[in-house]
Amino acid sequence: MGKMTTMKVEVRFGDCDPAGIVFFPRYHRWMDAASLHFFMSFGVPPWHELERINGIIGTPMLEHHTRFFKSATYGETLEIRTEVEEWRPKVFVQKHTIHRGDDLICESRETRAFCVRDPGDRARIHAVPIPEDVLAKCR
Amino acid sequence: MGKMTTMKVEVRFGDCDPAGIVFFPRYHRWMDAASLHFFMSFGVPPWHELERINGIIGTPMLEHHTRFFKSATYGETLEIRTEVEEWRPKVFVQKHTIHRGDDLICESRETRAFCVRDPGDRARIHAVPIPEDVLAKCR
Amino acid sequence: MGKMTTMKVEVRFGDCDPAGIVFFPRYHRWMDAASLHFFMSFGVPPWHELERINGIIGTPMLEHHTRFFKSATYGETLEIRTEVEEWRPKVFVQKHTIHRGDDLICESRETRAFCVRDPGDRARIHAVPIPEDVLAKCR
Amino acid sequence: MGKMTTMKVEVRFGDCDPAGIVFFPRYHRWMDAASLHFFMSFGVPPWHELERINGIIGTPMLEHHTRFFKSATYGETLEIRTEVEEWRPKVFVQKHTIHRGDDLICESRETRAFCVRDPGDRARIHAVPIPEDVLAKCR
Repeated sequence: MGKMTTMKVEVRFGDCDPAGIVFFPRYHRWMDAASLHFFMSFGVPPWHELERINGIIGTPMLEHHTRFFKSATYGETLEIRTEVEEWRPKVFVQKHTIHRGDDLICESRETRAFCVRDPGDRARIHAVPIPEDVLAKCR
Repeated sequence: MGKMTTMKVEVRFGDCDPAGIVFFPRYHRWMDAASLHFFMSFGVPPWHELERINGIIGTPMLEHHTRFFKSATYGETLEIRTEVEEWRPKVFVQKHTIHRGDDLICESRETRAFCVRDPGDRARIHAVPIPEDVLAKCR
Repeated sequence: MGKMTTMKVEVRFGDCDPAGIVFFPRYHRWMDAASLHFFMSFGVPPWHELERINGIIGTPMLEHHTRFFKSATYGETLEIRTEVEEWRPKVFVQKHTIHRGDDLICESRETRAFCVRDPGDRARIHAVPIPEDVLAKCR
Repeated sequence: MGKMTTMKVEVRFGDCDPAGIVFFPRYHRWMDAASLHFFMSFGVPPWHELERINGIIGTPMLEHHTRFFKSATYGETLEIRTEVEEWRPKVFVQKHTIHRGDDLICESRETRAFCVRDPGDRARIHAVPIPEDVLAKCR
């Protein structure tokens, strides 16, 4: 396995639903933040800078598989551990696990691609090979 | 296959990210709404009423597998089609597909359980068998 | 008073907080959607199309004053009524009221400006005069 | 002026809209978190614990007035400074300012009340006098 990063999250009142527990799409927001945090930790610039350099607008999600083991609530601190399990020519598989102390809260495997805007229609995007510079920094 | 419901969603500016496309956790919010919409369409009361009747606080997510095929942006109308693929004693598998006209935008299979609060600690929850009344109405 | 539009909102489980009521930033999301809905109802294109025509990226918020009168919960349908109270050269004041049947849920006055990106730094924006075309359609 | 707390926020990709800047309802989420952070910093328990002690479910918003001075984007760190400007018998006025280094990003004055559920209808809430214990800790 390669490099790993960690990111802390404070669970807030507004992250929780009427059952009093974290509303699950919120975990996906946090893991999305952890995904970018992974790249920026190794020197990849944020997407709005990368777009000026090579047109890349981010790493949209193609597929993910997520399991939830325990619930969490506000006032708690979670830790997200992030690594890349697999680098393929046009996609990568990123794995996140979210922990509260010794408890495993959830686990997700995300398949993402680096994408650029379609020159003919800025509202459309398509995948490009993973930039060499990203591989050199993060693999 | 059993019963199916549909739910329309208008994509809004604030649902989209700096790439100009729907930020993927938003799809999970919509599918969560479509999940409850499915049950309410067949006469199951919203969870805050159900909690008074039998203590059930909702159908927390245990696991899901989601694939994204095309992007969407604001000003577009999407349709979510929802059905239950499998009823097991304590969990059910709900499938959602999101469409824009003939385009398939994304597809998700969610494994959920009906849950009640732990009487000893209201911040903890646990699964109960799927209520007979729900099965009678929705299967 | 000039033109008015209305927009319906179905309150969903995930819009509510652990107190079981709509989490207030959610009202601001809905009123933001109602703001764009107002313009689109009178033939103004969505911002991603407007940007290609005249560079306008939206109507960022400069100031707002909001009062909340009653709470709402999921399973309820709300109606947002939107009008422009004042058109000034570079800003406009838009008023929204949110209703549940005869109940007034909240009321907000928003001051917004049409903005373009700074040509020297796409991450910065600045206000421009309200386009004549928008005034012709919406005043 | 009385006590002040500060809270750091990392702006994330998903906090930003298609214009590439923070979508304004997000500031309200952060200020809501800063509001609770203020109370917890002085020893008030999170609402889910307070509810068991005295029935208080939080401090719903009654009114706020917010001004936005500069935009922010992801990859930036913001600081929220929070204080209570006025304690009245049943409401308090909390002021937040959000800073990025020397830049003032936005400022909000929120009027909130401590609320309990209506014993006859758990979906309704009403304000109670500010608890003595809260005043003793936070004023």
